[in-house]
Amino acid sequence: MKLEVSSELKYRITSPATLILNIHALRSRKQTVLEESLLIEPYVKAEELTSEHGENRLIRLEVLKEEEISISYKAVVDNFYKETDHSNEVQVSVAQLDASVFPYLYPSRYCQSDKLFRFANNKFGRIKSNYLKVLSLTDWIHSHVEYLSGSTNSQTSAYDTVTELAGVCRDFAHLGIALCRALTIPARYFTGYAYKLYPQDFHACFEAYLGNEWVLFDATKLVPLNYLVKIGTGRDAADSAVASLFGNISCEFINVSCKLMEDAFEPFYYDAAQLKGVSYQ
Amino acid sequence: MKLEVSSELKYRITSPATLILNIHALRSRKQTVLEESLLIEPYVKAEELTSEHGENRLIRLEVLKEEEISISYKAVVDNFYKETDHSNEVQVSVAQLDASVFPYLYPSRYCQSDKLFRFANNKFGRIKSNYLKVLSLTDWIHSHVEYLSGSTNSQTSAYDTVTELAGVCRDFAHLGIALCRALTIPARYFTGYAYKLYPQDFHACFEAYLGNEWVLFDATKLVPLNYLVKIGTGRDAADSAVASLFGNISCEFINVSCKLMEDAFEPFYYDAAQLKGVSYQ
Amino acid sequence: MKLEVSSELKYRITSPATLILNIHALRSRKQTVLEESLLIEPYVKAEELTSEHGENRLIRLEVLKEEEISISYKAVVDNFYKETDHSNEVQVSVAQLDASVFPYLYPSRYCQSDKLFRFANNKFGRIKSNYLKVLSLTDWIHSHVEYLSGSTNSQTSAYDTVTELAGVCRDFAHLGIALCRALTIPARYFTGYAYKLYPQDFHACFEAYLGNEWVLFDATKLVPLNYLVKIGTGRDAADSAVASLFGNISCEFINVSCKLMEDAFEPFYYDAAQLKGVSYQ
Amino acid sequence: MKLEVSSELKYRITSPATLILNIHALRSRKQTVLEESLLIEPYVKAEELTSEHGENRLIRLEVLKEEEISISYKAVVDNFYKETDHSNEVQVSVAQLDASVFPYLYPSRYCQSDKLFRFANNKFGRIKSNYLKVLSLTDWIHSHVEYLSGSTNSQTSAYDTVTELAGVCRDFAHLGIALCRALTIPARYFTGYAYKLYPQDFHACFEAYLGNEWVLFDATKLVPLNYLVKIGTGRDAADSAVASLFGNISCEFINVSCKLMEDAFEPFYYDAAQLKGVSYQ
Repeated sequence: MKLEVSSELKYRITSPATLILNIHALRSRKQTVLEESLLIEPYVKAEELTSEHGENRLIRLEVLKEEEISISYKAVVDNFYKETDHSNEVQVSVAQLDASVFPYLYPSRYCQSDKLFRFANNKFGRIKSNYLKVLSLTDWIHSHVEYLSGSTNSQTSAYDTVTELAGVCRDFAHLGIALCRALTIPARYFTGYAYKLYPQDFHACFEAYLGNEWVLFDATKLVPLNYLVKIGTGRDAADSAVASLFGNISCEFINVSCKLMEDAFEPFYYDAAQLKGVSYQ
Repeated sequence: MKLEVSSELKYRITSPATLILNIHALRSRKQTVLEESLLIEPYVKAEELTSEHGENRLIRLEVLKEEEISISYKAVVDNFYKETDHSNEVQVSVAQLDASVFPYLYPSRYCQSDKLFRFANNKFGRIKSNYLKVLSLTDWIHSHVEYLSGSTNSQTSAYDTVTELAGVCRDFAHLGIALCRALTIPARYFTGYAYKLYPQDFHACFEAYLGNEWVLFDATKLVPLNYLVKIGTGRDAADSAVASLFGNISCEFINVSCKLMEDAFEPFYYDAAQLKGVSYQ
Repeated sequence: MKLEVSSELKYRITSPATLILNIHALRSRKQTVLEESLLIEPYVKAEELTSEHGENRLIRLEVLKEEEISISYKAVVDNFYKETDHSNEVQVSVAQLDASVFPYLYPSRYCQSDKLFRFANNKFGRIKSNYLKVLSLTDWIHSHVEYLSGSTNSQTSAYDTVTELAGVCRDFAHLGIALCRALTIPARYFTGYAYKLYPQDFHACFEAYLGNEWVLFDATKLVPLNYLVKIGTGRDAADSAVASLFGNISCEFINVSCKLMEDAFEPFYYDAAQLKGVSYQ
Repeated sequence: MKLEVSSELKYRITSPATLILNIHALRSRKQTVLEESLLIEPYVKAEELTSEHGENRLIRLEVLKEEEISISYKAVVDNFYKETDHSNEVQVSVAQLDASVFPYLYPSRYCQSDKLFRFANNKFGRIKSNYLKVLSLTDWIHSHVEYLSGSTNSQTSAYDTVTELAGVCRDFAHLGIALCRALTIPARYFTGYAYKLYPQDFHACFEAYLGNEWVLFDATKLVPLNYLVKIGTGRDAADSAVASLFGNISCEFINVSCKLMEDAFEPFYYDAAQLKGVSYQ
């Protein structure tokens, strides 16, 4: 399905600084970028970097003098998400796991799975299927954590959210990831543009590794997961921040949009009876 | 220089379990493994895995029934560490950094550099050279943190250590890494066998990325850094644990040794006047 | 009912030090101390202090030279605990609360009720009666937190326990207190000798302020609450530690006993159907 | 010296609620309240409470319906602060301390002195005089912690501030208290109106117990300590909050003033050479 996405960001820079932006639609087998433009005003050289694993397309800007710069990104993207079927899911144990997913099994800055081991296993350990474990913990987060803008900050982690029970999409994702890892299910952070997200903003959710596929879950339940435009993935928001800022920089403005360019709209929602999922891998 | 290392580990397993061990000497341009043996009793198939970046040689064991297993590793290694010179060090800024080192710039589970930003910059921000910044923070840790066996556990992080001021080599390394990253210097965790470490054990220290090289630092100052046998590197101990255990497993015994197989012994110690370092990259 | 209690403690002192011990049976309207002896070897002057609110009988010892001292306390106590009835409980709101109980409404070192506000209110806020709220949260702790010796230390707080879900009596009490306060029910820490506690040790539980009475609850459910010998109360273990040590002191030995000196044994256990409680006030 | 203070607060209440305000000038031997008025609009019965230790004058308001209420307090106060002399200070040890000050020796919600023991003793333990210890730690806080409005919130504690190194007067006070207690010097939180504080607001600092007197210190160094109007003291901000709110209440407006009603102005500033202090006890 075709989606048009855009983001506008404005930064005020008061000393020589470097910005690493993570706002480009990922180019992958499951996502074709049909058109794309990046406008920076005033002009600054923008270097596109690919992170080691090819899971983010980073833009690095170096600003040498005090100024205000505007970044405007637009893209038309074709999304070939895959519907996954977990009715006969093979339960891949650590003994069979590919070493490339190990990093997503270990605790990270915002997902202290080591501290949530007992919590996760008490609550979800008895469920047999990994798919149903993840579905169940996603539901638990959805029903226990309140979506509350401004209730958290950039230091808030899953360990906080599991007790304080309020947060934004980033916090919902971190808690989902931490609980998966505590259950020995690899999980990673997913950022993207989301259709039907109000108010419009960058979105965050998470992928769990089930039967050799990365399957998308979203404890906020705010958007249909098959209408996303993937920006990238990482261990948590430390890897996949929209912007990493080095120097005296303040963000003055963010505007994001995601529009569907087709008439048909067939939203996919998770349902324990159907054992299906959405994957962008 | 030639070193002989060995480690013996004994685990009691009470239900089907998987162990991922990280005890092999790394094979790299700077380190040749001349002889090597791994003995597991009773016999269990051991699968050698290489992590994505080739920075650890992992051994995966799957144990299907209740038993006690002994792992015995021995190797003779030739260490070609490099002496680095920082007298004309180019200060590589984020604007020039290779994207492959970005992961070592961001906060991780045990190295919450985001929370130490002000602390690190107040204390070390005014020092011009990155080499001297790292040397200085290493000295600060050495003189302020007490080496105290048993004072910390597997959940202890740099954020704790900076206040509680006691810990073991792992904690010293985590704090060093966190402070480097807070100063926008990429840093990573290093584990290895160490000559002259008493009591003998696996050792941990850290590497800072200075002028396109990974240079070794050790705030414990317990061993000469040019007589190490590198096991591997990672973001922090979450990536580079000696053992990652999945299932009901308890460690019953660990014995480690590291012997020099030559007569000459020329220990390298850091010295602010000399601007030199040790690298195993 | 008559109980005989004793405690023996041995401390090694390596520099001039002060010990404040909190091991004496409280003298109150609900508890008569019939016989009592305190033996200190070698002899050190022991000063009995009463804390401001009369809720602890403290013994202060000053040791001026290096030595090992043994403290041996014995008492025979008559316990006149009161059975409280909550079937017609008046729900005392903050607007009617006596100012003397305010300190027990606010967060303290180990009971960060401010951080558990949402958690407590989501789980127990809809229950109408304060008695049933406390009974319900006590049951929740009992069924979710594992009693595990050695799993926590003197820095562990309710905020840790609510997620890590393991601890000892002190941790169960702190979590109970924190949840009460988060529900605007004053609560305080209670220490004492407990009959039928195995292994024998000092015990900790908590009191909630219900309808103008301090009513005892114990999430460990290890002992009958009507066979306790009260030592004292405080905001949390910071106020009511068995021993507060100033100087270089290490505890070498603790032995505690509590025996019933009567034949009849009618244990009181909480039961949601009966709406009754136990109070030592 | 005569000072005129006032505070205006406006709260929006959206369900039956109770407010406990702590804005009245304390009546004590060292402070005479010459004139005083409290206006509440619309009229709500205000009950004056005295906390157990007589260290705060609390006002309790019960609001039964949805409304916006304005509280306006004014007072003219005569301040008889005492200048204390520490040139021959007796170093009172725990062995001589009055039991009434014990609560101020133990860790509390925002002052986790137990976690700062090593930090405090490493930095200040070698200083002989308690007065100079407190002066020195006050200077350390002043030079290391940045006064930064909005950098902290109501959950921020001394354990955070010692690392994050930014905060407001409340955070400076909590860190001062925690460091004192870690050095076995009783310390407590002090709130009041402060002359020459810009922007005008309620102020917080702390008292250390030196030679049987409570002596005032202020790591913010924003105001002369002899021109304060004391509101009250407590273990930390949990005890002495300006307002404790129970129910759905939001603060809409705060305005505070403190004016000197005399011509003479002789500010007292601490000076290590003079060994003098200010006390309101």
